[in-house]
Amino acid sequence: MRFHTRKWVKPEDLNPNGTLFGGKLLAWIDEELALYSIIQLENTKIVTKHMSEINFRSSAKQGDIIEIGIDVVKFGNTSITLKCEARNMMTRETIISIDNTTMVNLGADGKPKAHGKKEIEYVKDRLDSI
Amino acid sequence: MRFHTRKWVKPEDLNPNGTLFGGKLLAWIDEELALYSIIQLENTKIVTKHMSEINFRSSAKQGDIIEIGIDVVKFGNTSITLKCEARNMMTRETIISIDNTTMVNLGADGKPKAHGKKEIEYVKDRLDSI
Amino acid sequence: MRFHTRKWVKPEDLNPNGTLFGGKLLAWIDEELALYSIIQLENTKIVTKHMSEINFRSSAKQGDIIEIGIDVVKFGNTSITLKCEARNMMTRETIISIDNTTMVNLGADGKPKAHGKKEIEYVKDRLDSI
Amino acid sequence: MRFHTRKWVKPEDLNPNGTLFGGKLLAWIDEELALYSIIQLENTKIVTKHMSEINFRSSAKQGDIIEIGIDVVKFGNTSITLKCEARNMMTRETIISIDNTTMVNLGADGKPKAHGKKEIEYVKDRLDSI
Amino acid sequence: MRFHTRKWVKPEDLNPNGTLFGGKLLAWIDEELALYSIIQLENTKIVTKHMSEINFRSSAKQGDIIEIGIDVVKFGNTSITLKCEARNMMTRETIISIDNTTMVNLGADGKPKAHGKKEIEYVKDRLDSI
Amino acid sequence: MRFHTRKWVKPEDLNPNGTLFGGKLLAWIDEELALYSIIQLENTKIVTKHMSEINFRSSAKQGDIIEIGIDVVKFGNTSITLKCEARNMMTRETIISIDNTTMVNLGADGKPKAHGKKEIEYVKDRLDSI
Repeated sequence: MRFHTRKWVKPEDLNPNGTLFGGKLLAWIDEELALYSIIQLENTKIVTKHMSEINFRSSAKQGDIIEIGIDVVKFGNTSITLKCEARNMMTRETIISIDNTTMVNLGADGKPKAHGKKEIEYVKDRLDSI
Repeated sequence: MRFHTRKWVKPEDLNPNGTLFGGKLLAWIDEELALYSIIQLENTKIVTKHMSEINFRSSAKQGDIIEIGIDVVKFGNTSITLKCEARNMMTRETIISIDNTTMVNLGADGKPKAHGKKEIEYVKDRLDSI
Repeated sequence: MRFHTRKWVKPEDLNPNGTLFGGKLLAWIDEELALYSIIQLENTKIVTKHMSEINFRSSAKQGDIIEIGIDVVKFGNTSITLKCEARNMMTRETIISIDNTTMVNLGADGKPKAHGKKEIEYVKDRLDSI
Repeated sequence: MRFHTRKWVKPEDLNPNGTLFGGKLLAWIDEELALYSIIQLENTKIVTKHMSEINFRSSAKQGDIIEIGIDVVKFGNTSITLKCEARNMMTRETIISIDNTTMVNLGADGKPKAHGKKEIEYVKDRLDSI
Repeated sequence: MRFHTRKWVKPEDLNPNGTLFGGKLLAWIDEELALYSIIQLENTKIVTKHMSEINFRSSAKQGDIIEIGIDVVKFGNTSITLKCEARNMMTRETIISIDNTTMVNLGADGKPKAHGKKEIEYVKDRLDSI
Repeated sequence: MRFHTRKWVKPEDLNPNGTLFGGKLLAWIDEELALYSIIQLENTKIVTKHMSEINFRSSAKQGDIIEIGIDVVKFGNTSITLKCEARNMMTRETIISIDNTTMVNLGADGKPKAHGKKEIEYVKDRLDSI
């Protein structure tokens, strides 16, 4: 699993108990899932269809640095299934993990559309091959 | 299931495709789950421990009014299990549903603590009984 | 008066003195007035025209749960007049109350337009009667 | 009346109809009233107690520049009464005006406290007189 | 240099160390530079092209009132060069200063376009001369 | 230069002309500089002291994915100098680049303090060596 995006837990991200607001973390993860799918499927029209159960393993506090990792579970015909994890970057302690998230590739008509992808691609390789 | 909180989908709530950003909706739901638990367990120190799978049934667009409903699945010893749903208020179409969310009641020491609750209570009744 | 929307006072909602920022509360109330009017008048193009005086009765602090109530004062020809209140949900102490807010129903041309409504309607009844 | 603070209406400030969200404007005005009072009374512990009726004269759209003006109506013993206006900076068209807003000066105990001020002061003069 | 816009440092503006988040201050300054340019050049399509070095002279804490000042360094053919400063309004201590910021005037085609301005103008004078 | 954090340009990130608001981008970069410094210097008390000139090379639009890269220019005694770049992830076109940003390491007394670091370290290696 590769970890890219990092977040610095600021006062605006806290719940009233002074720990990281879970809803904020879910929003960060949802954005990362969406943009990862857009990069892999080379299509901006992608929607979250399903998330498997979410385990909240530990919490985070003001000043912590969170990093979010994503990996591909499988490439479907019109979808991609991802797993993800948010962890404390300094201690590597897992905060949240989700084993399966199904993202669906949509066509211009808003309906599922085959994306033709079968494996992880890197932007660098795409640009080098032009 | 009772629906209370309502949200008006504003431009700041949209993803780049112009529909309601899923992460925003998850944050709205997480806040509603937290405050519902605080009201029922009469304790502000409550954390989300687990969410069962999430189905994204439909989407929402700018100007839609979303309402969020919560119900109790069961009262545990140190936890409460809730189910919730976000739907379009005008059409009643379901947007997201989550069957089981486990919220844990914490003591001053940050550890799970028995809450002593066995059934849904209403604030009105509590205040009337003083 | 019926209370629906609930807010959990988070650090991002506070003024520098550590109490609920009044501007945030006014924004919450304005959103609730707007969406309530949209639901009643079945028209999304509605603007706030006038608010009567606002009394700030008490304050709120981090972790408090606020609930917002709205009621109809009268149905005009092209407008609806509402009253509203924000209170602490656990203690029922009033935070802000506004006796009269005039919301105007606009037509496609942006001008006031008769809405034809004379009494409070419930979405459930509308859907049942289809 | 002196106009200081300016705001650029961005997509995040719009309601779903694409015009400036009234709640956002009320929040901007409330912040300006608070900081103006802090400057005049040289005390950071000040709360909004009452606003007279609010007239929404016109609207604003994305890209408009709004400026907010404040003036003192009167200095009370433990309070200051302000009037304010938000207008379109390029056209000077009034958007919102509020004739009287009462801000109360609090002491360390959170109770109203005499502030000893009788007229508008400028920070420059205060600093020059040191 | 004239100081107009004022900001009240709220919890949502802080970094995890409890002082004003520098990125928030840069965003406030960038908005002020943009709207000042729009006012002077009477064109809404303006982009920031270059900022000279930025010195962070001092910090700010929750409750401080920040004011932002702008002045014109020079009027170019298709651009305007501004200098700006953010300071603590009560103490006049400088927080950030930027000596040169180049803002470019764009035409409908998105390309630099001559703006025809040679000196600072005031909105009041423009309106009076109609 | 290593690129980690990614951002999806949403409506809330746009200026009124519909392109990425420069102030938002500066805030994203400032957060990344801060957290990168915290990771390298293993100290959370770090402040931005100086940024060299900023070139805005190109713009970004709604739906673009931005990635932010940081590299170390040099390790000082009490500071670290970083360079950074924000680029469009799909096209690798540079949006903003800053050649030198000086971040200062503070001690508990708020004064510059030697950090003892001389080269880039990876969290993984630190954890492996425990």
